Amino acid sequence: MFPEPGTSSLTATPAATAVFTAVLTEGPLSRVTLARRLGLSSAAVTKAARPLIEMGYLRELAATERTGPGAGRPASPLAVQADREFFVGVKITADELIGVVCDLCAEVRTAAHRPLSGTGVGDVLAEIGRLVGDLLDGPGGYRDRTHRLGLAVSGDVDRTTGLVRYSPFLHWRDVPLRERAASATGLAVTVENDVKALTTAEQWFGEGVGAESFALVTVGTGIGCGLVVNGRLVSGSYGVAGEIGHIGVDADGPECHCGGRGCVEAIAGTEAIVRQARDRSGRPDLTIDDAVALARRGDEGIGAVFARAGNAIGIGIAAVANLVGPARIVVSGEGLAAYDLFEPHIRAGFERQAFGAAVQCPLSIRPLPFEEWARGAAAVSIQTLVAS
Amino acid sequence: MFPEPGTSSLTATPAATAVFTAVLTEGPLSRVTLARRLGLSSAAVTKAARPLIEMGYLRELAATERTGPGAGRPASPLAVQADREFFVGVKITADELIGVVCDLCAEVRTAAHRPLSGTGVGDVLAEIGRLVGDLLDGPGGYRDRTHRLGLAVSGDVDRTTGLVRYSPFLHWRDVPLRERAASATGLAVTVENDVKALTTAEQWFGEGVGAESFALVTVGTGIGCGLVVNGRLVSGSYGVAGEIGHIGVDADGPECHCGGRGCVEAIAGTEAIVRQARDRSGRPDLTIDDAVALARRGDEGIGAVFARAGNAIGIGIAAVANLVGPARIVVSGEGLAAYDLFEPHIRAGFERQAFGAAVQCPLSIRPLPFEEWARGAAAVSIQTLVAS
Repeated sequence: MFPEPGTSSLTATPAATAVFTAVLTEGPLSRVTLARRLGLSSAAVTKAARPLIEMGYLRELAATERTGPGAGRPASPLAVQADREFFVGVKITADELIGVVCDLCAEVRTAAHRPLSGTGVGDVLAEIGRLVGDLLDGPGGYRDRTHRLGLAVSGDVDRTTGLVRYSPFLHWRDVPLRERAASATGLAVTVENDVKALTTAEQWFGEGVGAESFALVTVGTGIGCGLVVNGRLVSGSYGVAGEIGHIGVDADGPECHCGGRGCVEAIAGTEAIVRQARDRSGRPDLTIDDAVALARRGDEGIGAVFARAGNAIGIGIAAVANLVGPARIVVSGEGLAAYDLFEPHIRAGFERQAFGAAVQCPLSIRPLPFEEWARGAAAVSIQTLVAS
Repeated sequence: MFPEPGTSSLTATPAATAVFTAVLTEGPLSRVTLARRLGLSSAAVTKAARPLIEMGYLRELAATERTGPGAGRPASPLAVQADREFFVGVKITADELIGVVCDLCAEVRTAAHRPLSGTGVGDVLAEIGRLVGDLLDGPGGYRDRTHRLGLAVSGDVDRTTGLVRYSPFLHWRDVPLRERAASATGLAVTVENDVKALTTAEQWFGEGVGAESFALVTVGTGIGCGLVVNGRLVSGSYGVAGEIGHIGVDADGPECHCGGRGCVEAIAGTEAIVRQARDRSGRPDLTIDDAVALARRGDEGIGAVFARAGNAIGIGIAAVANLVGPARIVVSGEGLAAYDLFEPHIRAGFERQAFGAAVQCPLSIRPLPFEEWARGAAAVSIQTLVAS
C-alpha cells in the first residue's frame, strides 16, 4: 500500500487521486465539500483520505488554525502537510541551469543558478548532478525527504517516455533524459516541455486553479503558449500545440525561421526586436537591453518596434481567445521585463481582435522571475507523485 | 426502466451510455472488443447491452451478416438497429428551412426545403411545424417511430436551456426556441449552433469518429470552426469558440464588421469576395456566381481574389493546427461549391504556416451539400437520445 519513495504515484484509486488533487490545489477543504465537489459519498472521501493522513501527506486542521466563514463549524478541513516531501525542479537553458527545491505546495524553499560552458549531454548531466547535490545537501536538510526531480526543457519533449526528441536551443535530438538524469541523481525523474511545465504550475498552484480552460503565453526568445482545455493540458496530435508564436498575423510581415511569414515570433521575439531596433537605429551592435533603454528614454523609432511587437502578441492572444475561449489568459516570460513597453499594445491588439464576448477574457500580464521556470519543473514532479 | 419516448435519454448508467455510443459510432463491435476498449468487464458490457437489445436499439449480427477478418469467430458483434427510431433535423437560415429525417445511424432517409418569407419567430415556428408534419406523415411512415427534433441555428445558442441568445442573420435575441418548437411540433427538441451541430455529426458519424481531437472549418457567408479537443466539443468560457473567421491574418487587411482588421472572414467570406470582385471588375452588380464563373474562365483579377481568400483560410487553419493540434481537419461549407478555385490556395497557405510536424495534419477539403446542415441537427438529437 505504501509505495517505495519516488517509484510510483501515491494514490491507489481514482477517488484518492481526486481527493489529493483537490486538497493540494484548492484546499483546505472539508470532507463534506470534497464529497459534494467530486461527486463521491462521504464514506468514499473518508476512505480515500485515510492512507494519505496516515502517511503524513494530509492533515486535519486544528480548530485554532481555522479562520474565515467556516471557522466556527465542527467539520475538520483537510490540508496538505507542505513539508512532508520536497521536490527538485531544474530548468535547462543553453547557458545555465536554474534549480529550486519546492515543498508539496510548490512553494520555493531554495534556489541556485549554475552557468553551463556547453550543451553536451554528458556535461549538462554532470552539472545537474552537482546542482541537485548542492541543493539537497545544503542548510535546508532536504535530502531525506526528496525523491523526485522535474526537468524542464524547451522543444519537443515526450513526457511519457522521458525522451527529448528535439531541443533546438540545446542542439539535442532523441536524448533519453529521464533515464540518464535518474542515473546521475538517484531521483525519480519527470521531463517536460518548459512551457507545459509552467502551465502545469499555474493550473495546479496559480491563476489556473479551478479553471476548466486556461492559457499561459510566454514572451521571450521564443513566444509559446500552454493551453488547458476541458480541464486537460493540450498536447497536439502531432506533438505540436500552443505554438502561438507561429500564427501568421501579418501577410506582408517578415519571413520567419519556421518557413512562415509574419509569424508573431518573427515580429515580437527577442531576436526580431533586436533586428528591427538595429535597422531603425543604424547601430548593428545594439542589444535588447540597449533597445529597452532607448525606448524608455522616448526614442520613437524603437518605441514603435515594441508597439508593433505588443500588437502582434495581442492579435495572437486574441486568436487563442477566439478559437478556444479560455477562462483566463496569463501573459508572462522574460521578455516582459520590458512590461511597460509591451503591455498597452498587447491589450490594444487583443481588444481590437477578440470576437464579441471573447474580449471579456481577463489578461494577467506580468514579468516572470527566472526561478519560475524551475518551479514549473518541480510542479510537474509533484504531479507525478499524485498520479503517474 | 423504459423511458417515455423523447423525454429522457435511453441509457441509465455511464456504462450503458459508453456501450451504446461505441456501437453507434464505431460498430458493429463484439462484447469482447467493447469490454477491452471501454475498460469494462465482459459482465458489465453484457448487462449494459441487454436492455438496449430488449428495446430493439441494438441487435446481434447473425453469422450470415458477418464478413471480414472476424467472420469465422463465434463472437456475436453488436450492431445498431438503424430503423428503430427516426429523428428530424432542421436547419433554419434567413430565407429557408432545410429539413431531413435521419435514422439512428444518421443516414438521411428523406429531405425537404421550405422558403421563408421572413424571420419573425412565430412565422418560422409555424413553418417548422408544417415542414415536420410533411416529413413525418409522408410516404416513409416515420411518424410512429419519431420523437425527437434537432434545430440548428447560426449564432450564440445555449444548448442546455434551448435558448437562442443571438442570431444575427435571423435578427433573433433571447428566443426560447426549444420550448416553442416543442409546442409547435409535439416532439422533444434540442437546439444547437449550426457549426457545432455539423461538428457533432462528423465526430459521431463522419471523419471525426475515434479522434481525440478534430476540427471542422466551414466556409461560406461566415467562416466558422467546430473544435473537438480531448474528446469534447470546445464551447468557450464566454460562449465564444471556433471563431476562426475572426483571427487577424493581415495587419494591413480590410476592416471587419466585428471591429477587427484583416480577419479571415473579411478577406474570404462570401460578401468580402463579392466586394473585392466588384472592385476588380468595376461591375457594381456582380454576384458571387458571376465571380466564380469569371474566375473559372481565367479572369486573372478575380482569380487573385479567390487565391487571396484561400490563402487567408489556409493561414487560419494553420493557426488551429499550431494551437490545438487536431488529428484531422475537415474544410467544408457552401463556399466550397467553388472548391476548385479555393483548394490549392488553402493548402499552400496551410503548408507554409503550419509549424513543424503540424503540417502532417490531414486536410479534407470538400463541398457541403446543404442537407448536411440539417443532418447535423438530427445528429444532435440522436446524441440526446444516448445521453441527455
